[in-house]
Amino acid sequence: MNTHCIDFEREDRLGFPEFVFGEAKTIEQLTEILSAFKKRGSSCLVTRLQEQKGAVLTEKFKDSVYDPISRTLRCGQNLPEKNCGTVGIIAAGTSDTPVVAEAAAVLTFLGMPIRTFVDKGVAGIHRLHAVMPDLATVDVVICIAGFEGALPSVLSGLVRQPIIGVPTSVGYGVAQGGTTALHAMLASCANGLTVVNIDNGFGAAIAAARILNRDWKTK
Amino acid sequence: MNTHCIDFEREDRLGFPEFVFGEAKTIEQLTEILSAFKKRGSSCLVTRLQEQKGAVLTEKFKDSVYDPISRTLRCGQNLPEKNCGTVGIIAAGTSDTPVVAEAAAVLTFLGMPIRTFVDKGVAGIHRLHAVMPDLATVDVVICIAGFEGALPSVLSGLVRQPIIGVPTSVGYGVAQGGTTALHAMLASCANGLTVVNIDNGFGAAIAAARILNRDWKTK
Amino acid sequence: MNTHCIDFEREDRLGFPEFVFGEAKTIEQLTEILSAFKKRGSSCLVTRLQEQKGAVLTEKFKDSVYDPISRTLRCGQNLPEKNCGTVGIIAAGTSDTPVVAEAAAVLTFLGMPIRTFVDKGVAGIHRLHAVMPDLATVDVVICIAGFEGALPSVLSGLVRQPIIGVPTSVGYGVAQGGTTALHAMLASCANGLTVVNIDNGFGAAIAAARILNRDWKTK
Amino acid sequence: MNTHCIDFEREDRLGFPEFVFGEAKTIEQLTEILSAFKKRGSSCLVTRLQEQKGAVLTEKFKDSVYDPISRTLRCGQNLPEKNCGTVGIIAAGTSDTPVVAEAAAVLTFLGMPIRTFVDKGVAGIHRLHAVMPDLATVDVVICIAGFEGALPSVLSGLVRQPIIGVPTSVGYGVAQGGTTALHAMLASCANGLTVVNIDNGFGAAIAAARILNRDWKTK
Amino acid sequence: MNTHCIDFEREDRLGFPEFVFGEAKTIEQLTEILSAFKKRGSSCLVTRLQEQKGAVLTEKFKDSVYDPISRTLRCGQNLPEKNCGTVGIIAAGTSDTPVVAEAAAVLTFLGMPIRTFVDKGVAGIHRLHAVMPDLATVDVVICIAGFEGALPSVLSGLVRQPIIGVPTSVGYGVAQGGTTALHAMLASCANGLTVVNIDNGFGAAIAAARILNRDWKTK
Amino acid sequence: MNTHCIDFEREDRLGFPEFVFGEAKTIEQLTEILSAFKKRGSSCLVTRLQEQKGAVLTEKFKDSVYDPISRTLRCGQNLPEKNCGTVGIIAAGTSDTPVVAEAAAVLTFLGMPIRTFVDKGVAGIHRLHAVMPDLATVDVVICIAGFEGALPSVLSGLVRQPIIGVPTSVGYGVAQGGTTALHAMLASCANGLTVVNIDNGFGAAIAAARILNRDWKTK
Amino acid sequence: MNTHCIDFEREDRLGFPEFVFGEAKTIEQLTEILSAFKKRGSSCLVTRLQEQKGAVLTEKFKDSVYDPISRTLRCGQNLPEKNCGTVGIIAAGTSDTPVVAEAAAVLTFLGMPIRTFVDKGVAGIHRLHAVMPDLATVDVVICIAGFEGALPSVLSGLVRQPIIGVPTSVGYGVAQGGTTALHAMLASCANGLTVVNIDNGFGAAIAAARILNRDWKTK
Amino acid sequence: MNTHCIDFEREDRLGFPEFVFGEAKTIEQLTEILSAFKKRGSSCLVTRLQEQKGAVLTEKFKDSVYDPISRTLRCGQNLPEKNCGTVGIIAAGTSDTPVVAEAAAVLTFLGMPIRTFVDKGVAGIHRLHAVMPDLATVDVVICIAGFEGALPSVLSGLVRQPIIGVPTSVGYGVAQGGTTALHAMLASCANGLTVVNIDNGFGAAIAAARILNRDWKTK
Repeated sequence: MNTHCIDFEREDRLGFPEFVFGEAKTIEQLTEILSAFKKRGSSCLVTRLQEQKGAVLTEKFKDSVYDPISRTLRCGQNLPEKNCGTVGIIAAGTSDTPVVAEAAAVLTFLGMPIRTFVDKGVAGIHRLHAVMPDLATVDVVICIAGFEGALPSVLSGLVRQPIIGVPTSVGYGVAQGGTTALHAMLASCANGLTVVNIDNGFGAAIAAARILNRDWKTK
Repeated sequence: MNTHCIDFEREDRLGFPEFVFGEAKTIEQLTEILSAFKKRGSSCLVTRLQEQKGAVLTEKFKDSVYDPISRTLRCGQNLPEKNCGTVGIIAAGTSDTPVVAEAAAVLTFLGMPIRTFVDKGVAGIHRLHAVMPDLATVDVVICIAGFEGALPSVLSGLVRQPIIGVPTSVGYGVAQGGTTALHAMLASCANGLTVVNIDNGFGAAIAAARILNRDWKTK
Repeated sequence: MNTHCIDFEREDRLGFPEFVFGEAKTIEQLTEILSAFKKRGSSCLVTRLQEQKGAVLTEKFKDSVYDPISRTLRCGQNLPEKNCGTVGIIAAGTSDTPVVAEAAAVLTFLGMPIRTFVDKGVAGIHRLHAVMPDLATVDVVICIAGFEGALPSVLSGLVRQPIIGVPTSVGYGVAQGGTTALHAMLASCANGLTVVNIDNGFGAAIAAARILNRDWKTK
Repeated sequence: MNTHCIDFEREDRLGFPEFVFGEAKTIEQLTEILSAFKKRGSSCLVTRLQEQKGAVLTEKFKDSVYDPISRTLRCGQNLPEKNCGTVGIIAAGTSDTPVVAEAAAVLTFLGMPIRTFVDKGVAGIHRLHAVMPDLATVDVVICIAGFEGALPSVLSGLVRQPIIGVPTSVGYGVAQGGTTALHAMLASCANGLTVVNIDNGFGAAIAAARILNRDWKTK
Repeated sequence: MNTHCIDFEREDRLGFPEFVFGEAKTIEQLTEILSAFKKRGSSCLVTRLQEQKGAVLTEKFKDSVYDPISRTLRCGQNLPEKNCGTVGIIAAGTSDTPVVAEAAAVLTFLGMPIRTFVDKGVAGIHRLHAVMPDLATVDVVICIAGFEGALPSVLSGLVRQPIIGVPTSVGYGVAQGGTTALHAMLASCANGLTVVNIDNGFGAAIAAARILNRDWKTK
Repeated sequence: MNTHCIDFEREDRLGFPEFVFGEAKTIEQLTEILSAFKKRGSSCLVTRLQEQKGAVLTEKFKDSVYDPISRTLRCGQNLPEKNCGTVGIIAAGTSDTPVVAEAAAVLTFLGMPIRTFVDKGVAGIHRLHAVMPDLATVDVVICIAGFEGALPSVLSGLVRQPIIGVPTSVGYGVAQGGTTALHAMLASCANGLTVVNIDNGFGAAIAAARILNRDWKTK
Repeated sequence: MNTHCIDFEREDRLGFPEFVFGEAKTIEQLTEILSAFKKRGSSCLVTRLQEQKGAVLTEKFKDSVYDPISRTLRCGQNLPEKNCGTVGIIAAGTSDTPVVAEAAAVLTFLGMPIRTFVDKGVAGIHRLHAVMPDLATVDVVICIAGFEGALPSVLSGLVRQPIIGVPTSVGYGVAQGGTTALHAMLASCANGLTVVNIDNGFGAAIAAARILNRDWKTK
Repeated sequence: MNTHCIDFEREDRLGFPEFVFGEAKTIEQLTEILSAFKKRGSSCLVTRLQEQKGAVLTEKFKDSVYDPISRTLRCGQNLPEKNCGTVGIIAAGTSDTPVVAEAAAVLTFLGMPIRTFVDKGVAGIHRLHAVMPDLATVDVVICIAGFEGALPSVLSGLVRQPIIGVPTSVGYGVAQGGTTALHAMLASCANGLTVVNIDNGFGAAIAAARILNRDWKTK
């Protein structure tokens, strides 16, 4: 049974290549897929890849790198750097680092400049005010928070840029694996905040890329 | 069938009298209960009472007053004013006014001083910073918010007093009738924030009263 | 009790003025708020306003217009037209029209150009393919769907622009008032789709405005 | 305590034998049940069997085969091939392979012809259009998808055959272990799509068999 | 704003025409849509139409008939009777009648023969056994139940035909508007039962039509 | 379409007749059903019947009585009084009266003796201790509570009789229409407490009747 | 910190001793508790005890027996056999055996006679009809089922005894760890079925014991 | 990437220092954070720290102590003892001990006096009555319970002090990891009970500290 059908046309169609969701694929399936990318001479980024599978695949593919924080495997080089705006990635807590890292890995793979600001949650809001001048220099904001997910609500009232909220699964009890942060961001009375799935640093990165990808009408 | 058994001993036992939950009682049941209070010469406050039932009962009980904002009916006078600390009631939005009013009505009935601050939500956080000096003068804070319920999270990081969060049913979609605000307050990474049921201004008021009721060990 | 505190500084801070959430405010509260806007000589848009309250307020405020489809009340003129990109608004079904209308009302109030495409759902996908050339001319896409909310998933694979999904409460049974469409959009395997609350045409419009508001760093 | 009571009459009554749900049975219970089938000279298929238990049982029953992808154990031969229509099994992603394999194993055991199409999800919808001619040749369609489960919605608008949706537990966050895909398929505005439980490739296979089992009135 | 785009090609593509979901459409929208059907000389069936809207539309469209039980409006004649198998519709309780009626209305509109069996729930299972001979004569079974939705589970073990479960919103408390019946049918240990949305008699009818529509490959 | 099939054999089979669930039946359906009972000379009790439908039916059936508190309609006489144990019905609050009344109406219809105790909730637990001697005289306990549903937990630790908990929909916010009381009773660490659906005074009454119906083996 | 306070008075008060919930207690806590029972010369039954902890404790307490199926540890002898009615325990599937075993262990410890009937689910309902004569001889019925939990619904319509439903966590997907079976039993249109928590064989056993414990008024 | 930004100003601002949430931080992150505290000469308490990580960190930080019951790591000395009121911590069951221990660890770290009462649940309510005199001597009550969480409801009707409920994740089935206890406490008809997140002994301790921290206005 043939179990994959890679969308190599995606880069032409959308401006970015297909990424590979690693979590629920077997080593065999990933090996076939990475080989297909390699054969075409294309780089590839696998997301949500377990550490154990990462170890096996970096053995098999010598030009691949696995990063245990972001849980990504890059096979081949990052794409050429883009001359475009910068993406600011801000997170409420140290525990949100894996999601920051995933968003950063995807944007870096795409060749887009980033700046990161971690542990700026609302429990000590002076930390947020302190980075406002720096945040003013970025073109899109990705705002990451777990627990009650209040940071994007507050930040949306302070910045004029597009802002994308990413709830994380950090927390316990009614935090419900990120559901509360997700619902809080969606129900936010802040204006124009958009949201992606729990822990979906990848999706936020692509959304930011779509925004900064100014040539969309000319291609 | 006898359908009530009023806990008149509650005032001695707990320091505040029994309040009457009006929402699911019939006019007949409420009439019997209010008459029993009257016969003892005690004042009484009915909460969550529908406007229509309020109109009928104020007809029947001439010393009663119905307030459609807080949805309370007071039968008899407020209890004597207490010489104790002040309760600050702060709300995120104009739409939270009914819950502010319920908490205020209960505390006023108990004879406790209050200060109110409405429409100070995090979407324009300068409004919150502006009232911080005033908030510093109160002894307990009741913090009310609907939608994503972020205000108590932020405020808990700014005040040292006891703080009680009250989620409201204001909002739509994933706000889910106040569930998201409730969960956000409970999952908050702010320290020492406690929470009551959705729209439960009454419960927050009693909790504040318990805190300010300094003579609890001597009675 | 003073129950409002309008954030007039929002326009300077964020590039768009405060909008008024009408659903849970009383006629009295709305009258006070609209008068305050009027006194400053500012226009104002009220969203999610019930038809009955709209009728009373258009009586009181002669320069106001209520639109029962979008459930918005505009008091004063639309803001000056902006010289910026166009927002495409596409909806899966005829029943999604109110949400289309809300997004359109907000963007029109802000002076931003729009194009609308309604009843292009996936049950007859040729209807979607037919409008692709037109969609290619817009700069941001707002994609609205109820029931299972599949349209944004499919469309995200066909357009390179930023795309904002809006789930609607159209449907019954497990559609659960829009929750299923919301979850489907968030869980979508499409890349870079961002999402707002159920029926939140307003939020999607502001998000689109943030994207097209190119001067954010210079102000 | 006797803990099983096999329904050997099922084949006569319904046209297919009893299958054994392996997940929550002990090795001892499965051994007794398989021995009972063997004693009657009947083949048997165990579904949702963990790999470890599969290893023990293939040791005990020499004519048995365990397949780790579909998690099925077949004891004895497949049933005789049936001269009936073909079942098309189409899946959105590579990660859905285990559910494809379970449906295929059950239909193969029943002697029914199948065709499989994997990784044809809506994120790159040209892949779906490409297999439409092949899909036109089958008699029933089983359509499998995780994440937002949009494929069955789209496909139901393109094929006239009976179509059975199978949500899978592939995804994370609000995908909620397949619940979002399930709800999306049930709430679909596509016409005449029916649905089975999450990951229930087995149930979809039997439903397809019931449809193709043309002699139901004569037996 | 043009708010409809009727899929007139559906009949050629799928074998049945587009049906109109009436619940969330305005009188104006429905009038436009029905006029478009009329102009083409096509009949049309509107489902889930509120009684009040039905009254207005039957005034406007003289050849239309509204049925308050099934909540359908038929504009024009039923389609020609089909020479195909019969659909058996069986329901657990008298209260499920509206869903029975909706399925019957759709099948009758399509020209397909039906037989109905109502109030055959499992609380008195002899009533079910009594109709088994009659049920043996139909070609597909639609099985409708509210409350705990047990009837399809039991019936699936007694009939060999394709069987489609329809949960209804009849019940209270944990019946949760049909969710419990839905989940019970999906989680059923019965083999090959497929399910549609709560109260979706329409969907079950189309699914049955797809099964009986034998010429799907030749068209 | 014939829409009812009364289980007149139920009394012989189970010891009590079929009761009619009135909520989701039309006046026409109820008229047919009551006429069928009448024709057999049997009494009948309709439960969960709306007041408006009750008024119409008492007009039609002169020997019928409608009780708006319990929402039951009795057509014909109560069954003969039984010489059996007594059922104690205890409720936490005045607001639970409708459920008390439903249980009482059903038991009275069956001819079984009852005792009722209302407004004995745990907020003033001395009220519960005060009725313990009276409760000791009954043979089965039905314990009814809304809000957090704590009364059955406490009571189960104080009485040795069979005890059946009935959660009610009294409360607001996270009380969730009785779901919290239901879950609390089910999760109770009290021993041997059994539970029925929310507001299901009817079910609790029948369960009590089954327990007191000592002749079950002889019939 | 002293962490236990055994309720040794329970046997006098309720007719059965305190049972020990083992799941969330440490070896140290269990050792202290069992020693306290031993010191009093009382037997004790620990429920929901993990196998590993069972092994340690049977080492420490030589007169104790651990049963891995029911996950109970008995320390000391069973209580003297009671001369009372019999409890019938019937389960839908082989996979429900652990819950059957827990109920059986508790009743056996209490000295009450039982009869068990396993794998009698509704998918092959003739298996249920076959045991009806045997079931007629018991005095109380405990009915255990996972998946959609339909067996208690059907059985309640066939037996006149008290019947207690126990949902089990057997199943997958929307079976949701037993929640669907629980809800189905609670929402059942069967009359007088009562229910306990998921997998709570213990609670069902105590409820049965309360029913058969005829001397409750004399003690 | 710098991933932490400690809020050292918190002690001045709020009266208590920042605590470190250990669960989702890596050893590397915790090492950096603890070193920063050490460098300032400040003590630090880490909460919800897994045993394995505790072992590594006590190796690295010689003046640190890990407690596996409360899952806290203390680095440095407890803060100086405060001359303030006492906090009473009462728990329903032995299994709630970890949450008792966490609250106790936090209060002890802050230098506040405590008294603990464990295994006083409502199933044997005499145990609660027995400790009432002792409870009368404390100034704030923290009340901890799992399963149905009834203890705070009962206790709130017996004590006049401020009372903070903490639901625990002890229980199974519908106890839903503490959600039922949480909801029961929030929906409680007891007056003035406030609640924190599931298992959040830490939050309850800080809330108690805020209440006893009388000098809040002078600082």
